[in-house]
Amino acid sequence: MTKSIEETDRFTPRFNEQGLVPVVTQDAATGRVLMVAWANSEAIEKTLSTREAHYWSRSRGELWRKGATSGHVQKVIRVLVDCDQDTLLYAVEQQGPACHTGRDSCFYREVTAGGLASAT
Amino acid sequence: MTKSIEETDRFTPRFNEQGLVPVVTQDAATGRVLMVAWANSEAIEKTLSTREAHYWSRSRGELWRKGATSGHVQKVIRVLVDCDQDTLLYAVEQQGPACHTGRDSCFYREVTAGGLASAT
Repeated sequence: MTKSIEETDRFTPRFNEQGLVPVVTQDAATGRVLMVAWANSEAIEKTLSTREAHYWSRSRGELWRKGATSGHVQKVIRVLVDCDQDTLLYAVEQQGPACHTGRDSCFYREVTAGGLASAT
Repeated sequence: MTKSIEETDRFTPRFNEQGLVPVVTQDAATGRVLMVAWANSEAIEKTLSTREAHYWSRSRGELWRKGATSGHVQKVIRVLVDCDQDTLLYAVEQQGPACHTGRDSCFYREVTAGGLASAT
């Protein structure tokens, strides 16, 4: 009898039609959500083997070791997978800002009735 | 001169080819990531107007008010958008478990070298 995908201890990520899963990246210490990006099978393997966050850059179409050019690397404390195995969570120690705009997190604006406001 | 999408105070979500954006849902008090789902324009509007989390159910192909059947509603404290406006974050007060398996969060398993282990 096969355990359901929610209960199995086998890691069988369910990639989308582009071979990718979304990854939520969270500061392991504060819980702040830093960014959301995408990973393919290779990026996940590299992340697990090196303990540095790897993604798949959809804009550049290549494997992306976060911080490879900026130096803003992410040391991966742990990797979690969700119930239906189509989303990952990297809990990281972030070196420098996570966002390419220089902000600590990519989520720096709040959506309000009137538009966007700076998040506190 | 138009402000870049990273700096504008206009909310112009960049939906994918299915008209959806991923949504990370986080416990507003603890920072725990509860789930990742998808929203279309209507789900976002309903979330902002009712302050209860709405998503688009890809499996059922319909607007989904979280907790409509389970009672496990999410009171939305705030909605954030990321730098390039293709991902949202709902910070919520979760009523009951967030996961359909009955667990507090959908991220209850850690990916290890040997497979999956229960996350602490």
